[in-house]
Amino acid sequence: MVSIGMLRLPSIDANSGQPIYRQLYEALKQSIMTGALRPGDRLAPTRELAQEMGLNRATVSAAYELLEADGLISGQVGRGSFVQSREISFATSRPSEELFPLEDFRASAEEVIRSKASQILQLGSPKGYGPLRDYLVEEAMEEGVFDPAHDDLLITSGCQQALDLIQRTLIAPGAQVLVEEPVYPGLRNAFQGRLTANAGAAGSQAQVVTPNFSNPLGRTMPLEERKALVREAERSDRMLVEVDVYSQMRYRGKAIAGLRQLGARAQTLLLRSFSKIAFPGLRVGWVIGPREWIQRLGQTKQWTDLHSDQLSQAIMLEFARSGRLKSHLERVLAAGRASLAATIAGLDEALPAGSSFTRPEGGMNLWVTLPRGCSSEAVLEEAKRAGVSYLPGRHFSLTQPYRENLRISFAGLAPARIEEGMRRLQPLFAAEAQRAKLAVANMEPLPAMAMV
Amino acid sequence: MVSIGMLRLPSIDANSGQPIYRQLYEALKQSIMTGALRPGDRLAPTRELAQEMGLNRATVSAAYELLEADGLISGQVGRGSFVQSREISFATSRPSEELFPLEDFRASAEEVIRSKASQILQLGSPKGYGPLRDYLVEEAMEEGVFDPAHDDLLITSGCQQALDLIQRTLIAPGAQVLVEEPVYPGLRNAFQGRLTANAGAAGSQAQVVTPNFSNPLGRTMPLEERKALVREAERSDRMLVEVDVYSQMRYRGKAIAGLRQLGARAQTLLLRSFSKIAFPGLRVGWVIGPREWIQRLGQTKQWTDLHSDQLSQAIMLEFARSGRLKSHLERVLAAGRASLAATIAGLDEALPAGSSFTRPEGGMNLWVTLPRGCSSEAVLEEAKRAGVSYLPGRHFSLTQPYRENLRISFAGLAPARIEEGMRRLQPLFAAEAQRAKLAVANMEPLPAMAMV
Repeated sequence: MVSIGMLRLPSIDANSGQPIYRQLYEALKQSIMTGALRPGDRLAPTRELAQEMGLNRATVSAAYELLEADGLISGQVGRGSFVQSREISFATSRPSEELFPLEDFRASAEEVIRSKASQILQLGSPKGYGPLRDYLVEEAMEEGVFDPAHDDLLITSGCQQALDLIQRTLIAPGAQVLVEEPVYPGLRNAFQGRLTANAGAAGSQAQVVTPNFSNPLGRTMPLEERKALVREAERSDRMLVEVDVYSQMRYRGKAIAGLRQLGARAQTLLLRSFSKIAFPGLRVGWVIGPREWIQRLGQTKQWTDLHSDQLSQAIMLEFARSGRLKSHLERVLAAGRASLAATIAGLDEALPAGSSFTRPEGGMNLWVTLPRGCSSEAVLEEAKRAGVSYLPGRHFSLTQPYRENLRISFAGLAPARIEEGMRRLQPLFAAEAQRAKLAVANMEPLPAMAMV
Repeated sequence: MVSIGMLRLPSIDANSGQPIYRQLYEALKQSIMTGALRPGDRLAPTRELAQEMGLNRATVSAAYELLEADGLISGQVGRGSFVQSREISFATSRPSEELFPLEDFRASAEEVIRSKASQILQLGSPKGYGPLRDYLVEEAMEEGVFDPAHDDLLITSGCQQALDLIQRTLIAPGAQVLVEEPVYPGLRNAFQGRLTANAGAAGSQAQVVTPNFSNPLGRTMPLEERKALVREAERSDRMLVEVDVYSQMRYRGKAIAGLRQLGARAQTLLLRSFSKIAFPGLRVGWVIGPREWIQRLGQTKQWTDLHSDQLSQAIMLEFARSGRLKSHLERVLAAGRASLAATIAGLDEALPAGSSFTRPEGGMNLWVTLPRGCSSEAVLEEAKRAGVSYLPGRHFSLTQPYRENLRISFAGLAPARIEEGMRRLQPLFAAEAQRAKLAVANMEPLPAMAMV
């Protein structure tokens, strides 16, 4: 973060006839436009800048408000104002960095480096940092998803690594893995070439599901469907991989029991992570499952990278154990609920007639279907020029092209940015719908009269 | 680390007739033996404990000296006294945690979490943390191993992950990889089933070498051999993987140009890491090589774990850029030199006639050959009972059994511990040599007289 105080102070001319706050606004806007101030940089607090420039604090605040109205900066109580990326990206399933509880993170990190450094810096165990494993095991036992007599837990570098380790270790060569389609790119890439969306496919050895707020659909699997899935797995002896990285981000409705709570424990692997609910830059995930499988995964992990980074593991433990994660989650939930509401309202306005979209109860993503014949890829070209992005449907393709679909990842953006993004998308969607309609019309047989 | 001040203070009886320092020594020894104080725990500074117990500082110092003489604790100027592991382990190729510059690490970590937290906690790039990549690229350019027109750099979770990514991405199915035998377990496991030690093997697509202080031999490859290797690679179009994790730990002799400095740039991947020279618990390594290969490795990395932990990357950057790594390296070199000298002197005493061992110029490991017929595995059984361990030769086996061999990893131990370890090993080696001699003798044809 660069503080504006470190840049050359804008020169203000008291006799120019232009109000001082407006001069300051123009100067700061210029700095953002030229890149002297960059996305993520923090502006000096109004009080500080006012003092440094010999201005009223109200003058500086007025300038900041104009920048905020332009969507150039975004302010947060007690955190300061940050320069916004000019692109509004609905493309990544990740949290907003504006929500990061930096002071709480620092306190946890400082506690760890003060008291645990010596132990953390030495080579660790492939299974993960012992105290974090103990903590997670205890939590899982309370929740009823861990049986110390039969289960074990392995720390991984995020959920992505767990998928990769499973693929390498537990899936026989040539065996197929059943997934929900559309499928998210991380999953598709991890199991490359071995996925099927056909539930009836013979020989699918494992099934990967995200029962809560799936990516990209944002779908919640109903209880009855979960029970049927568990029964079917038990009957067919199929491995279940339960991706559970979003379940703590439920904005409405009641929690539903997870697969591992419902049964089939001896064949279910449960994948979790701190990445979605806290800090994606710290790669700390874990997998819970039958001991023999976890041991084999741990062995592969050792050959893969020895073990996951210990500093982040220790910090996440401190962050969770101190209750800071819980407070953070409350803020994440409040923010996510607001972002989801803004997204739904925005899409209702922005989408042309004949479109539809999913209405998730939680998580980070929803799925849009444009009218027949539209190309989400074609709109994206235009959208990027307008400073907006998303992932078109083809990224989630297994057997279907998903030409008319797109994923909106809303959790990384504040409502004002979402509204602005939807405003920019609206005319582009409208034009594409119009084009598609004409194209379809042109393919209809011409009326008889025109044949004359 | 537990400070002794946090435990129940030992009770001292001034009228018991036993000197107070000895009572204190016995009480602390008891705490170590019962596990109330554990390996790695730091004892309270003598001044502090004296004050707390109302004793003379000299009394406390005398007690600590007795503990140190027993090998139960180890003191370090300015760092305090630490409880030693009761086992003396020559088994792991890693640095001593007593050398970790905790204050310097803390300063680097605090700098990072104060000023970079927001950026580091967000999802990052599969190629690694940008500022660290820039720093490493600049260093590599100065050294002449990086050409910005043709090369690229990928951050990995240690050198182990680089090996795994190479194996998965750049080695064709069925192709063989040529290595030096004995081969270290991390390398053997990464390329499992695809290694050959036969230089003449047709179809070996790649060759992995550690030119400086190889593991386990501790061998330095002479310049002429390096040149021949580079020429042969250019001629045969074979990929070279240059494992370069020890080269900064040279205790004597002059540095020799690396493979990538000598040529064959378009086919050489250079693997480096902070793990051996600084902190193994922070998993930060990197690989330098031709751009197209690095890009493919980066793609695999993304499917594998998205990216490496960013906090550790940022801290290592700060640690290096601030000059703290350089100061640390000087201490590492001084300590490693002393440990190597103690190991050589200790082995000269401890090994039976007919043994031999390698004499490395740097690194962390050397290789012992016991007299013919000895079993390093059999001695290890006994050694463990005596509180000493090492890795027997079979762990480094590809085609040879290495029954008579063992690896001594010396860099994690202070000279006093090494001496103590060798003292414990000496009678065990002697007994095994005796046993082997008799066994060999018994297999000789009996003299004619005995046939009567």
